[in-house]
Amino acid sequence: MDNEEKMKLYKLRILRSFKWQRDIVIPLSKELGISQEEFEDILMKHLDMSSLSSLHSTYESTMPEMIMNKLDIDLKLFWYVDILELMSKEDASDLKVQLSLKVLDGYDYNQAVEDGKKLILEKIR
Amino acid sequence: MDNEEKMKLYKLRILRSFKWQRDIVIPLSKELGISQEEFEDILMKHLDMSSLSSLHSTYESTMPEMIMNKLDIDLKLFWYVDILELMSKEDASDLKVQLSLKVLDGYDYNQAVEDGKKLILEKIR
Repeated sequence: MDNEEKMKLYKLRILRSFKWQRDIVIPLSKELGISQEEFEDILMKHLDMSSLSSLHSTYESTMPEMIMNKLDIDLKLFWYVDILELMSKEDASDLKVQLSLKVLDGYDYNQAVEDGKKLILEKIR
Repeated sequence: MDNEEKMKLYKLRILRSFKWQRDIVIPLSKELGISQEEFEDILMKHLDMSSLSSLHSTYESTMPEMIMNKLDIDLKLFWYVDILELMSKEDASDLKVQLSLKVLDGYDYNQAVEDGKKLILEKIR
């Protein structure tokens, strides 16, 4: 086995670990409509061992921001803050922080969106 | 009819116009799970005549940004740019601009998301 093949095996061992599969390979390959194997190949082609190893911790550290950004869109907070001016930026930010902490703690995301709508309604009513 | 009642009638006349109903009152009241009448009351309580009148042009001017933000989330561009580093910020931004212009021109948003996934795949493959 040459060095390149060995490297590929090492990389694949990282990518095949449970959390990398569950949080990265499976959801993103599905999203892009390609096989998990092809997505693994793309990652192995572009990322070195060190990047692949740190991938999951990068993912975890960006999760809070991702959830907050998604809440912003799903709750249409832009509307209430920037267009209708019914909520302050601070209130919107507090709401996102409060809900995203719950989601990070395991609370269902879609339920958090529903809770968020009720909280917006309380604010603007 | 006293002044307050007259003012309410004027405000309601604005809110009942076609574009305000189609783009603001109907979708947002549905989103919040309240009646259109209640949402109109909320808007009339918090916004003066001038804000209500300019509401639709504010909405139109913020549409491009809203679409770009939504594309960012729906295409998971954050992933490819910040976590996997498979795309540059510039490429992601070009992609969003290109797709959002089509959507503003009447192209179906969900189709634009599907097109976007294909374009991402071309970039990272």
